[in-house]
Amino acid sequence: MSLLNEKFSKIGVDHAPGQEGRQQVGEIRFRGEKLPGKPVDFSHGDVDAFEPIPGSLDEFAAGYKRGGKQAYTEYRGGGSIREDLAAKLAKFTGKSVSADNGLIITPGTQGALFLAMGSTIGRGDKVAIVEPDYFANRKLVQFFDGELVPVRLDYLGSTGRAGLDLTQLEDAFKAGARLFLFSNPNNPAGVIYSPAEIGAIADLAEKYGATVIADELYSRLLYDGRGYTHLCAMNINPDNVITIIGPSKTESLSGYRLGTAFGSPRIIERMEKLQAIVSLRAAGYCQAVLKTWFSEPSGWMEERIMLHQAIRDDLLKILRSVAGLEVRTTEAGSYLFPRIPALAVNIQEFVKVLRLQAGVTVTPGTEFGPHFTDSFRLNFSQDHEAAIQAIERSVKLIERYRK
Amino acid sequence: MSLLNEKFSKIGVDHAPGQEGRQQVGEIRFRGEKLPGKPVDFSHGDVDAFEPIPGSLDEFAAGYKRGGKQAYTEYRGGGSIREDLAAKLAKFTGKSVSADNGLIITPGTQGALFLAMGSTIGRGDKVAIVEPDYFANRKLVQFFDGELVPVRLDYLGSTGRAGLDLTQLEDAFKAGARLFLFSNPNNPAGVIYSPAEIGAIADLAEKYGATVIADELYSRLLYDGRGYTHLCAMNINPDNVITIIGPSKTESLSGYRLGTAFGSPRIIERMEKLQAIVSLRAAGYCQAVLKTWFSEPSGWMEERIMLHQAIRDDLLKILRSVAGLEVRTTEAGSYLFPRIPALAVNIQEFVKVLRLQAGVTVTPGTEFGPHFTDSFRLNFSQDHEAAIQAIERSVKLIERYRK
Repeated sequence: MSLLNEKFSKIGVDHAPGQEGRQQVGEIRFRGEKLPGKPVDFSHGDVDAFEPIPGSLDEFAAGYKRGGKQAYTEYRGGGSIREDLAAKLAKFTGKSVSADNGLIITPGTQGALFLAMGSTIGRGDKVAIVEPDYFANRKLVQFFDGELVPVRLDYLGSTGRAGLDLTQLEDAFKAGARLFLFSNPNNPAGVIYSPAEIGAIADLAEKYGATVIADELYSRLLYDGRGYTHLCAMNINPDNVITIIGPSKTESLSGYRLGTAFGSPRIIERMEKLQAIVSLRAAGYCQAVLKTWFSEPSGWMEERIMLHQAIRDDLLKILRSVAGLEVRTTEAGSYLFPRIPALAVNIQEFVKVLRLQAGVTVTPGTEFGPHFTDSFRLNFSQDHEAAIQAIERSVKLIERYRK
Repeated sequence: MSLLNEKFSKIGVDHAPGQEGRQQVGEIRFRGEKLPGKPVDFSHGDVDAFEPIPGSLDEFAAGYKRGGKQAYTEYRGGGSIREDLAAKLAKFTGKSVSADNGLIITPGTQGALFLAMGSTIGRGDKVAIVEPDYFANRKLVQFFDGELVPVRLDYLGSTGRAGLDLTQLEDAFKAGARLFLFSNPNNPAGVIYSPAEIGAIADLAEKYGATVIADELYSRLLYDGRGYTHLCAMNINPDNVITIIGPSKTESLSGYRLGTAFGSPRIIERMEKLQAIVSLRAAGYCQAVLKTWFSEPSGWMEERIMLHQAIRDDLLKILRSVAGLEVRTTEAGSYLFPRIPALAVNIQEFVKVLRLQAGVTVTPGTEFGPHFTDSFRLNFSQDHEAAIQAIERSVKLIERYRK
């Protein structure tokens, strides 16, 4: 079991979003008194502040009433749901999607990511991933016995582009990596890859015959009227691309655990084989709720974007009042990833300080890459006023713990 | 990718229950005309014939209305739901269950099985499994790079016991296996392990320090007033036992994808780590439905058992009219696993014949072990009359294709 022990020591969840209640509190020298205020959990969005797409519960009930047909779908998801979804995703991305063999419905985008990586990473395979990027990416590579090849994203030093180090990406391919995984918009940095960057990724993947998994979870929540470039619509072998997206974030359907992956039939087929032994299928009745996705009431998405943008702007203003704090303006999604000035406690300790002294839950930067020891991530899809007050408390604590 | 190709070639789903619609039909020399009648899908239970626990949809809606707290539970499942469940499972098994560190809620029992095996099988580890047993067991061992050590279940030749070959089990442990996985009641044979057999399994596991995963999915659907022995309540190191159970079958809650595993805190902790990268959690709103489980209306379970027993008896009578067919009387669960006489077509072909000529879907025996080339499994949790007619058609086709 020693190989297995090592593996599980790498995929710890103590600092993962949502698990903060299970943390053992070590000895921290607290400074000053607690700061009162409404607790805010920035580790994920607040679906009470931004509610699910209207009518989702009705669609669930309708699915329940359809009975066995809805409870026991094919492992890749119900046929008519896939047809509806394929048409919507084709319209969204500008690339045709095959309902029959190019699409799978999964338990959340986490499920899609797990299946996609389990279907493409063999033991010892080199896998190029971005740093910083979604915290599970590294853990998944480790779980499947792959070898991480990090590629830097200079999100703070770039403008007009996400900041991917394309030389490092090519070096990763030269070194033998045949899989590249990245989130766009980036989680946690909230940046959108430029058309030129996406074009370059497609060209490099073509040149080296690499497979690319594009996690586009946040690609509908775009600010300031920005555009978005889908990798799958570029000049790239469609059998080497998997796109992942789901309605858990912007659309607040997270309680139903729904996601989808589409693209390469070869990989989708493997993903279904894997799903058959992982969890059979996304909950059948929940799948029915996908009917509401990309079919939101007129103006609903526009309003949601506007409200999030307003929160973003208010939080940025407060954060930027801190001397030495750096933060890039979120271009899409609902994350901020500030780099904070040097403190007298380390980032894990400061995250605990925030939670215990200010009722503010954030995720330490180290979840997104080992070097991000001076950053934390916050999801600002929250009650607007509570979020402002929570960030004001956080700023006070940064000052209080400043080195 | 060649290691990966090999792995995925082993975990095919073409003949898996529920995937029949995706089968490519090869060339079969059909005999005679189609047999008309209402199609019956015996690959899984019919939740329209046996409906979910009353009130499940209301509990789901109540969960939805609780909002974010219900949508984002801990990865191991919501705290208060685990507390309620731990008390019920302790009462059911006669063994205390810790809500805090000894229980995890999963997306179906399939999810529990995947997480439990992923948490206990290291590359190259020998794993003892029963033949015949649940089809995913073998695939899971293969996916996790374990080595299968089969242990025979002589379900046709035994009475008063399931028929496990205890000598083979000890030999497996002697050969180095430190994990034993079995379903009780057995899927597909429908037999209950006797108290002596469970005692012997516990003793052997203790002697060799082995971990045991007991899949008790069907342990509430017991016929003829039979008893049931829970392995976890025996004299065995509790840190070496994981018990899996869920409400998808007897209780027809399959459309919600809910399961649970309980026992060893060491293994449950790993399962949660794994769940964090596999699918985060069982759908939050769905978890709320667990409140109805083990809290069914008075008499509801008794009636369900009685109705299933009556279907079992009618189907057995018809099947036993076939010369050369052998089948053991189901003691628990809703499966029959008849061994049929020699036919002019192989079992995969006959399964297709049944589907295409009689509208009858069953699962070939080879899904449960490579040697079961003369058997198929059927789940008789169906509309009673439709099931009778479907088995009558099946019997006609056995005669028509008899060698």
